[in-house]
Amino acid sequence: MFRSEITVVDCTVRDGGLMNKWQFSDQFVRHVYTALSESGVDYMEIGYLSSKSSFDRREYGPWRFCFEEELRRIIGDGDKSIKLSAMADIGRVEHDDIPPRSEGSLDLIRVACYVHQVDSAIALAEHCTDKGYETSINLMAVSTVGMRDLNEALEDLDKSRVPVVYLVDSFGAFYSEDIDALVTKYLERLPEKTIGIHCHNNQQLAFANTIAGIINGANYLDATMYGIGRGAGNCPLELLLSFLKNPKFDVRPLVKCIEEEIFPWARKFNWGYSVPYMVTGVLNQHPRTAMAHMESEHKERITEFYDRLSSAAD
Amino acid sequence: MFRSEITVVDCTVRDGGLMNKWQFSDQFVRHVYTALSESGVDYMEIGYLSSKSSFDRREYGPWRFCFEEELRRIIGDGDKSIKLSAMADIGRVEHDDIPPRSEGSLDLIRVACYVHQVDSAIALAEHCTDKGYETSINLMAVSTVGMRDLNEALEDLDKSRVPVVYLVDSFGAFYSEDIDALVTKYLERLPEKTIGIHCHNNQQLAFANTIAGIINGANYLDATMYGIGRGAGNCPLELLLSFLKNPKFDVRPLVKCIEEEIFPWARKFNWGYSVPYMVTGVLNQHPRTAMAHMESEHKERITEFYDRLSSAAD
Repeated sequence: MFRSEITVVDCTVRDGGLMNKWQFSDQFVRHVYTALSESGVDYMEIGYLSSKSSFDRREYGPWRFCFEEELRRIIGDGDKSIKLSAMADIGRVEHDDIPPRSEGSLDLIRVACYVHQVDSAIALAEHCTDKGYETSINLMAVSTVGMRDLNEALEDLDKSRVPVVYLVDSFGAFYSEDIDALVTKYLERLPEKTIGIHCHNNQQLAFANTIAGIINGANYLDATMYGIGRGAGNCPLELLLSFLKNPKFDVRPLVKCIEEEIFPWARKFNWGYSVPYMVTGVLNQHPRTAMAHMESEHKERITEFYDRLSSAAD
Repeated sequence: MFRSEITVVDCTVRDGGLMNKWQFSDQFVRHVYTALSESGVDYMEIGYLSSKSSFDRREYGPWRFCFEEELRRIIGDGDKSIKLSAMADIGRVEHDDIPPRSEGSLDLIRVACYVHQVDSAIALAEHCTDKGYETSINLMAVSTVGMRDLNEALEDLDKSRVPVVYLVDSFGAFYSEDIDALVTKYLERLPEKTIGIHCHNNQQLAFANTIAGIINGANYLDATMYGIGRGAGNCPLELLLSFLKNPKFDVRPLVKCIEEEIFPWARKFNWGYSVPYMVTGVLNQHPRTAMAHMESEHKERITEFYDRLSSAAD
């Protein structure tokens, strides 16, 4: 698949950091940065934008905040070799805490929100637009949103100045047929926007659903190296780049970075497919119960977990 | 997805046995048999049919052969609770070594062959038909077969008395678009046959490609519990049954069997997605180099593996 509009956003540090509170070493982040640059990936999402007061710096690593001095430690003094993105959650960053783009190293700010927060998200994203940033809104957990609410949110987004809107399968609940229907709907309701897609791997469908997104016209594609992320993880970037036939992409730097930086984390955190993540995906639930189960000492007691969630869902 | 014609064939013992030369305990096989029966799965493929002279019984477990007395140890004396299938490879079983269906416990014999063996496969399958069995032909490694050869094979299959023909993605090389095109082609060229699909998980697409097969009209679906199998493994049965909405299916007995029987094997054999399997999948190669790499002491040296295979493929 080659389409010049396709834009790949790596979320290794931002989404992977949900697993370890962004306690990555500078060496890790620098290697990811270099590998992504060499691979021809379009954006590196390096973390979340948060106000200082939102999180305790002793508990959370630098990429929960993305302060400029920390970004500079990664980039060095020269020009950047890849565009940088940060995600902003509603309520965790004050508008005034975001510096003008000209004073910092970030290019893209992606505002993540639930459907009831879409007005605040538009306000924040347009504030970022006015400060010079590229922006997107990433509408989370749409698998749980009723049609009327979704239509209303898409109507608001259509009227906004935000150029990119993401379909996010937060719970890994979607099959490709859902992606077909939703990307088509987003494109119809948002005729002047670019559509993005962000998938989770609870049912081993993150990569396949990203492909379904591409086929239906999504042009912003999220992935992480080796699928790193909490729970079942994400669409693996190495698979996505192997699929995309644009000659600007090169998988080898990713393979090297996976070997050197991702494998050591894979030994500590066991992200990826397992039955409890499948169960929450199939039930269209937040993976928190499955994550708690997988972090417990009895993580192999999957029948007990299955029974508990199935009877609660009855 | 509910379609009454859909038939699920579990390959846990047959395909999983490629990993450990079918050295499963009777308890394992019996538990799989019971769990599949309780789950409403249509067929259990319990192993390969082989002549005694083809393999050394000291090296290979009973399910490389599927002799009647071994089958009886699993089923017991009463009626079977699920239909049983065995696979036959061309050249490894003499026609005369196959008992009439009325004298044994097998219902379905699936003949696996490469495209150049299709004539022998038809002869063997029709021989089994004449002995009373249900039959299928599973045409392997079609991702490496040229169009003219494939058309010729499909023409021969169309003329045969074999009622079921499988699309097999032996190398895990296909994307959903390939499945769309091939299932459509098989249905056009084999208008009176039922089409089956058997996928591997090198690119995390085994389940997604099985769904693509269903959407395009394939009605025989292969899977294994927790994706057990050599290399990257197979389409996970628990995911497939969760997707199929036929109320006859129940996932719970599978979850229990995975917990009790599959997890112990997962600790010994590390099937599932990893970069070397992705590399052979993307290069459309047999996974044997990746399997050798993953069994070596330096399995984490994935860059070296990537370089070796990429330069050989240049």
